[in-house]
Amino acid sequence: MPARMPKKNLIVARSAQQGLFEVGAPTIAAAPQPEPKARPARGPAAVKREDATSMAARQREISISEFFTKNRHLLGFDNPQKALLTAIKEAVDNSLDACEEAGILPELIVEIHEVGEERFRIAVEDNGPGIVRAQIPKIFGKLLYGSKFHRLKQQRGQQGIGISAAGMYGVLTTGKPVRVLSKIGARSPAHLFEIAIDTQKNAPVVHKDIEIPWDKEQGTRVEIEMEATYKKGRRSVDDYIEQTALANPHVTLRYLAPKEDVKLFLRVAADLPVESKEIKPHPYGVELGILLRMMKDTASRNVVAMLSNDFSRVSPAVAEQICRVAGVKGDADPRRVSVAQAELLFRAIPKVKIMAPPTACLSPIGEELLTRGLQTRVPCDFATAVTRPPSVYRGNPFQVEVGLAYGGQLPADDLMELYRFANRVPLQYQQSACAITKAVLSVDWKSYGLAQSKGALPTAPLVVSVHVASVWVPFTSESKESIASYPEILKELRLALMEAGRRLGAFVRHRRRVADEEKKRSYIEKYIPHIGDALQQILGLTDAKRNRTVEDLKSILEHSRKV
Amino acid sequence: MPARMPKKNLIVARSAQQGLFEVGAPTIAAAPQPEPKARPARGPAAVKREDATSMAARQREISISEFFTKNRHLLGFDNPQKALLTAIKEAVDNSLDACEEAGILPELIVEIHEVGEERFRIAVEDNGPGIVRAQIPKIFGKLLYGSKFHRLKQQRGQQGIGISAAGMYGVLTTGKPVRVLSKIGARSPAHLFEIAIDTQKNAPVVHKDIEIPWDKEQGTRVEIEMEATYKKGRRSVDDYIEQTALANPHVTLRYLAPKEDVKLFLRVAADLPVESKEIKPHPYGVELGILLRMMKDTASRNVVAMLSNDFSRVSPAVAEQICRVAGVKGDADPRRVSVAQAELLFRAIPKVKIMAPPTACLSPIGEELLTRGLQTRVPCDFATAVTRPPSVYRGNPFQVEVGLAYGGQLPADDLMELYRFANRVPLQYQQSACAITKAVLSVDWKSYGLAQSKGALPTAPLVVSVHVASVWVPFTSESKESIASYPEILKELRLALMEAGRRLGAFVRHRRRVADEEKKRSYIEKYIPHIGDALQQILGLTDAKRNRTVEDLKSILEHSRKV
Repeated sequence: MPARMPKKNLIVARSAQQGLFEVGAPTIAAAPQPEPKARPARGPAAVKREDATSMAARQREISISEFFTKNRHLLGFDNPQKALLTAIKEAVDNSLDACEEAGILPELIVEIHEVGEERFRIAVEDNGPGIVRAQIPKIFGKLLYGSKFHRLKQQRGQQGIGISAAGMYGVLTTGKPVRVLSKIGARSPAHLFEIAIDTQKNAPVVHKDIEIPWDKEQGTRVEIEMEATYKKGRRSVDDYIEQTALANPHVTLRYLAPKEDVKLFLRVAADLPVESKEIKPHPYGVELGILLRMMKDTASRNVVAMLSNDFSRVSPAVAEQICRVAGVKGDADPRRVSVAQAELLFRAIPKVKIMAPPTACLSPIGEELLTRGLQTRVPCDFATAVTRPPSVYRGNPFQVEVGLAYGGQLPADDLMELYRFANRVPLQYQQSACAITKAVLSVDWKSYGLAQSKGALPTAPLVVSVHVASVWVPFTSESKESIASYPEILKELRLALMEAGRRLGAFVRHRRRVADEEKKRSYIEKYIPHIGDALQQILGLTDAKRNRTVEDLKSILEHSRKV
Repeated sequence: MPARMPKKNLIVARSAQQGLFEVGAPTIAAAPQPEPKARPARGPAAVKREDATSMAARQREISISEFFTKNRHLLGFDNPQKALLTAIKEAVDNSLDACEEAGILPELIVEIHEVGEERFRIAVEDNGPGIVRAQIPKIFGKLLYGSKFHRLKQQRGQQGIGISAAGMYGVLTTGKPVRVLSKIGARSPAHLFEIAIDTQKNAPVVHKDIEIPWDKEQGTRVEIEMEATYKKGRRSVDDYIEQTALANPHVTLRYLAPKEDVKLFLRVAADLPVESKEIKPHPYGVELGILLRMMKDTASRNVVAMLSNDFSRVSPAVAEQICRVAGVKGDADPRRVSVAQAELLFRAIPKVKIMAPPTACLSPIGEELLTRGLQTRVPCDFATAVTRPPSVYRGNPFQVEVGLAYGGQLPADDLMELYRFANRVPLQYQQSACAITKAVLSVDWKSYGLAQSKGALPTAPLVVSVHVASVWVPFTSESKESIASYPEILKELRLALMEAGRRLGAFVRHRRRVADEEKKRSYIEKYIPHIGDALQQILGLTDAKRNRTVEDLKSILEHSRKV
């Protein structure tokens, strides 16, 4: 190896084959000393800034609440306008999930009150099952606490972060605690709480805990005061409320924006969506580390029972086959299986044919409601929708739906508009980061008759509405604004978009043909009378004869065009 | 309000002015009952699925490790190729930060060993200060633990998540613990640890803790075995290593990829970058909630002292002015200040003129090194760089740099290429989500002579390299792949891009003019001899006279064109 500084800073040396970089336990110490310093930068004493001991003194634990306070843009609180939206969205998600889980047709109230300059008090109230008193402080005053994280089920919430983060943002910007009113039944009292988060401990601090009368049978009302701004237009709360009504036709929603009249969105579907079922993990998606932990935590007494009880689609026969392929005894105690044996099982799983995960856990909107929703919202000439069959990523079932509206009064010279939904929740921010956007960009819209520049969305009078439903939506951040680009999800998105695109292409081509016809027809209508006049002169026809000839000519030409 | 279901699902009622939606404590109970159900969906008993009590039984705490195991795409572990990159990146970030903090010119070894199908063992070794034994388990076996989170300082790492998450991913996919070897000085022993995370507790489990000989004075070596794939090309580890060398000219790096010879990147700058200083928060960026906590936690005895000791750029005189504007006593005990008084102080801060935050905390790459780096990497005709003066978002100083290379052998028909860096770390994924990309898209590149379609990057033989340095980079997710779009950051990015764009525009226009000249010149050279022949015939010139006339004509035309 060269001792002097070479002209280029890239050299290919030939030491790898000599085993210098072996990394096993005994040879780790034999890793070569790096190149001596090219030249001493300054006197080492002058450069010395810190050492291991002084650095160790600064190491400390970071509470999850501190982490998200500093990184609040991860939760959707990067600016006052978005903060307002995010807080309302988190509260509405919780209300809808709770109502649906309890089998109650949701009736929500959403209010935004302006209480000062850049300061608002939001309130979200539902007719859901309410929350038992003991749980209220933790649900609203502790991040990473909830009932949904450990379940594989299509729900709006999944993290146990959202609503407590909204409350934390309220305290951060106004010092005011969150107010929660909840009642679990006609004969129970209503509890009014005031709760703040102690961010250093990630624990609730209860400021008030009293019973008050509430003339509602059951339900929950959350109020948060926060620094925020309220705006109309794209990505506004108004927009969110409308899109929520669109994707949740079973919901009645009363909405009060600042300085406005109450808007009432009545349900158009009188039934709750089919209940999404909770499922167990599918073995095809499991990781070795998860399998190891499941083995340790299982209630089953032997490996075959563990595999068939703790996974979906694994019958005892399939479990036995996995053990056989792995060469692991089926009656072994799963808690005593070694890492090496677990790895054998792990490697055997993909070699055994196992049924795809059950898909009753998913509750798509459906082609009919999607098309109808678009037609209501968008004054278009053509609308269609595609609901794909369920598919699986990392063991999690998911399903993609695409609706599409074209023409009408949509602007023809702008880029198309994209509505995105995940588990019926509208996604309004981070469009460009989303797998949905990437899929739309990856489709060749020119082949469906639209104009599209390299790297851009098509320029067309087009609205595309995409819904991804899953037992676990992989969002790109905790603010749940866009979906991560897992290859399986991208593939399904593309298939759905291309099917909708083909239908659109047929319509666009047909319309273009009709327009061409129209143009030709107008030529015929324009020139044939002149031909008639010319023939009359040449052949000395009577006016009647001329007229008949013109009519004959027209119908012959019409006929030949049709053929 | 209508009792029957109306045709449209949107009604404007007039109840807001009647105070029905008042939300104060006594009136909260007076919130109106929502619209009665449009029609009962099914028998209530049939629909009843869950109630508050059954739901409460499922509420539980979620450990941060469980959270990130399930959401591992948030940390950059969505697929095996990216997992390899992310793990190496986190280890390299830590090594470089540690070396620089200790004032040591970094000499790194990065190795990737293929140990099976889709299975690799990575190793990153440095000559840094090492880690004291007691800290090793937590640093590598506990998420949200570290020394950087609570400091306002330009560093690569900031969260205390990265390296332990990489280890967790290793355990998750292979069951193998992380191996760490560390030595803090010539006379200290080297400690070899094997550490796994207990994800349910977010705590380290130490499998091995021994002393072994290591013929290195000091340093740290981390080895992680993981499921991964190694690929060449864009977004590869190779690419990352090259870009890292580009943005860190003071680093020597030895890189061993699978089945390759060792590549050695020698440093081209012999000095460490100027040390970035730690700063205190600036009062303009503080939130009320943070101010309240700082008041509670301060070591100062009165409000004036607290403000001047705990904030940057607040002298006692400025602190007194804040108190005066707020109407709060400067000698009050900060721990006893009420929320209302704190809010008065909070509202007074923006009304008092306070110097901008110090910017010695930032360490940009610099225009010269940026230009030189681009010229080395990209065979171009034109290169330039712009380093903007430091600016501030949310109280955090930051600085933007843009380098730009044009022409040469770059492909003219492709979209331009964008390199992104944050605190000298290359960002390779989530390009479209990044504020840098948004800024590039928002610039009108047509005005600098480039082709650009609506909503797309310009199509040009162009590479743009952008560096954002800050004491706290607001990433859009924990995987630190893209920067959040804070308005102040977007503005600085645009200013830097437009300045570089103007310079490029001047070059492009000049080159176009030269090309036009060339064309005209070739016309002159083509036709003047013919004119000479014609003149010779008309005027009966001698050959010599004709030649002289042609030369004269040429020089006159050249001259007139230049004028």
